[in-house]
Amino acid sequence: MLYAYHRTGRADGRAAFELFFRSNPFGNGYTLAAGLERAVRFIQQLGFTDEDLTFLQSSGLFPDPRFLDALARFRFTGDIDAVPEGTVVFPHEPLLQVRARIFEAQLLETAVLNMIGYASLVATKAARIARAAGGHAVLEFGARRAHEMDAAMEGARAAVIGGCVGSSYVAAGARYGLSLAGTHAHSWVLSFPSEIEAFRAYAAVYPDNLILLVDTYDVLASGVPNAIRVFRELRARRGALARHGIRIDSGDLAHLSKQSRAMLDDAGFQDATLVASNELDEAVIAELQRQGARIDAYGVGTRLITGYDQPALGCVYKLVAVEENGLWTPRLKRSENAAKVTNPGVKRVLRFTDRRSRRPVLDLIALADEPAPTQPFLAFDPVYTWKRKNVEGADHADLLAPVLRGGELVYDLPPTDRIADRAREGLRAFDEEYTRLLNPAGYHVDLSPKLWETKMALVRAAEG
Amino acid sequence: MLYAYHRTGRADGRAAFELFFRSNPFGNGYTLAAGLERAVRFIQQLGFTDEDLTFLQSSGLFPDPRFLDALARFRFTGDIDAVPEGTVVFPHEPLLQVRARIFEAQLLETAVLNMIGYASLVATKAARIARAAGGHAVLEFGARRAHEMDAAMEGARAAVIGGCVGSSYVAAGARYGLSLAGTHAHSWVLSFPSEIEAFRAYAAVYPDNLILLVDTYDVLASGVPNAIRVFRELRARRGALARHGIRIDSGDLAHLSKQSRAMLDDAGFQDATLVASNELDEAVIAELQRQGARIDAYGVGTRLITGYDQPALGCVYKLVAVEENGLWTPRLKRSENAAKVTNPGVKRVLRFTDRRSRRPVLDLIALADEPAPTQPFLAFDPVYTWKRKNVEGADHADLLAPVLRGGELVYDLPPTDRIADRAREGLRAFDEEYTRLLNPAGYHVDLSPKLWETKMALVRAAEG
Repeated sequence: MLYAYHRTGRADGRAAFELFFRSNPFGNGYTLAAGLERAVRFIQQLGFTDEDLTFLQSSGLFPDPRFLDALARFRFTGDIDAVPEGTVVFPHEPLLQVRARIFEAQLLETAVLNMIGYASLVATKAARIARAAGGHAVLEFGARRAHEMDAAMEGARAAVIGGCVGSSYVAAGARYGLSLAGTHAHSWVLSFPSEIEAFRAYAAVYPDNLILLVDTYDVLASGVPNAIRVFRELRARRGALARHGIRIDSGDLAHLSKQSRAMLDDAGFQDATLVASNELDEAVIAELQRQGARIDAYGVGTRLITGYDQPALGCVYKLVAVEENGLWTPRLKRSENAAKVTNPGVKRVLRFTDRRSRRPVLDLIALADEPAPTQPFLAFDPVYTWKRKNVEGADHADLLAPVLRGGELVYDLPPTDRIADRAREGLRAFDEEYTRLLNPAGYHVDLSPKLWETKMALVRAAEG
Repeated sequence: MLYAYHRTGRADGRAAFELFFRSNPFGNGYTLAAGLERAVRFIQQLGFTDEDLTFLQSSGLFPDPRFLDALARFRFTGDIDAVPEGTVVFPHEPLLQVRARIFEAQLLETAVLNMIGYASLVATKAARIARAAGGHAVLEFGARRAHEMDAAMEGARAAVIGGCVGSSYVAAGARYGLSLAGTHAHSWVLSFPSEIEAFRAYAAVYPDNLILLVDTYDVLASGVPNAIRVFRELRARRGALARHGIRIDSGDLAHLSKQSRAMLDDAGFQDATLVASNELDEAVIAELQRQGARIDAYGVGTRLITGYDQPALGCVYKLVAVEENGLWTPRLKRSENAAKVTNPGVKRVLRFTDRRSRRPVLDLIALADEPAPTQPFLAFDPVYTWKRKNVEGADHADLLAPVLRGGELVYDLPPTDRIADRAREGLRAFDEEYTRLLNPAGYHVDLSPKLWETKMALVRAAEG
């Protein structure tokens, strides 16, 4: 497509693209935006190496050498607005807006869909899992089951944004300042002649952070009794214990955790932490909690880092306007599927928050040049237009913030812990009807009358 | 764990690890091994940068400076055997065997699970999709929905190993020599005042490879008629057309493809190719084929590159033996879940192929130092031990090949197209009862009597 833009003399025309998704994943009532930092850093370094250009030339697909010259000079010089990471967002709201030469804006498509789609998926899954775990810690253990190594890295970060307290992936700790959380594997135990020798050796190395994996042979007959022996030996040598506990990675976690808890308590180790893992997700954790499992922390791997039950958010990146004579002209994709008809034009998204309850009550997608509506006003659902909502006594704020201007960063990329705070506080602000795990209510995201009329006019024009 | 191995003076002890999975994904009857090249290249360059070491030191977790010295000197010096990429494999067969200092072997765990697990998952999914498509081409279109950028790259390669004829991800074409396949997006059409202008402009650039996306406004009322106009104009100018056709990306693909085919045929474009895309997988494609959809090529994205309905193969990496006095001593993890009990010892895998039919009849997992059994012999299922199979008149071959010796590559890493050939020919050799998409029969993978006895002795020892 870039070659075609180049060859038809259209590369320099300016276009506006929007990245959005069409439904929340996992049957959830919202999505957590994530992946912006990664996407921005990618865009800022985007270019073509000599090796890239040699390949493209040798492919024979691009016979015009001026095209390769244009790629050699490529850097992104456009404007980007985006929803800050950790923001609670909803279907059809633009997470990223790109306004640039179409040659530049088009080149971003695959990368921004890939990065923002994946990170937002995992952040949302993590928020669901953290909610199911109640106040208990959730640890991200998924690097081995991630889809290749970048996903291990960015998935760990997204998991922490969504509510995990740490990750076992040390490289992600180094890159993004995540807390590290990990214990030993079965191989540690198997590398010794006996479990008790393995536990004693581990205690000698990590006396202050001693989490022993107790299911290599038999949790209740061997693992827990051996752990208690080692805790006793350590206490005899050092007095009070620092962080200590066990991890169970197989079997009936409800039963084994209750039995293990009782054995630890009876032995005087009421402070021992019990970590559970093994194909956990929000449904399994919620069920363990309901059964009164005595689990203090959950290690979650595969089902978090892959977004197991819906491993794609389905983000799209659509052209919504082209610049003509210095003005943005809205464009609309009609599509055979009604849900795939796009919202045209360059937009803003306003979130209205009730002044008294401090709870968000409505998001309004409007054209960028529209002022916020005067209250009270009647908003209507863009699909079920007879569903209306009166908005009054509400503050409003724009969801989109300027990120790049002329290719230069004009946005402070916050550290991961600040993004995680934003997500937690943002979720707390919403009424629970929107954030519960099962059958959440649909939060109101409406179109401004002007945007609605623009869309209808373009639909009719496409029909004609 | 590495620090603990180091601190307890055990880092230099040799251990054998195995990578395997416990069940085929997607309800499939087999799995295609992939990801070895990526894993081998990773292992050969594995080391720690100054930046890595500074982070690890600053973390405070590793107070012994000799540990950081050991990491600074790290390189993999062990032996690895592996199943060649593109091989048809089954649960519990080792895809990768590592024999090395435990310090080195342990460090590989996360990366090899991640890389081989993901690539094998996608290769297997691609094989299922290619089978459903019959003789029709399948194109990999998933980069935008992959889990981050490494997955776009390695997923494209794995898809081609499994049977896709090309990928739309240009960077994967460059890195792995994949055929490139792609068309324009809706944004191309929307950037023009009208669909016909967009099609004409595209035809001017790509007259010899002209696939037009016809669903931006209305497939049958606008897209196909406009495509036909442009094909006619091009034919008038150039005579016979080279590759030309349409792509449909939404709506009822069975209905739209039949109608579009009729319109193209009526207009004299019987050679026009019809490409379909939109959330396709093997089930949708099989149903389209059954309905007589007139689709020549399928573009498959999200559901292939994410392994949508089961986005993890669930590979594990288990210690199976430790070296004691120069001999491998088998080790076994008992586990609370019966299916998680490991097969101990360093092993070989023999595939028996009937001399007359040339079809594989049995795989036998044996200890590495066992000779192939004399035929005829009676093999028995390792779980349902009363299920027996008589093997006679069969050739046998080892599935595992030497890859690294003393850290040095002793294996020719084949190009992707040769791996794809191997996969295709390997699958063709198996009886269809094992390769059909729904409810395939279980292929016989049995344990040698000696391995079985070793395992039972270790289970009993763990119980005692």
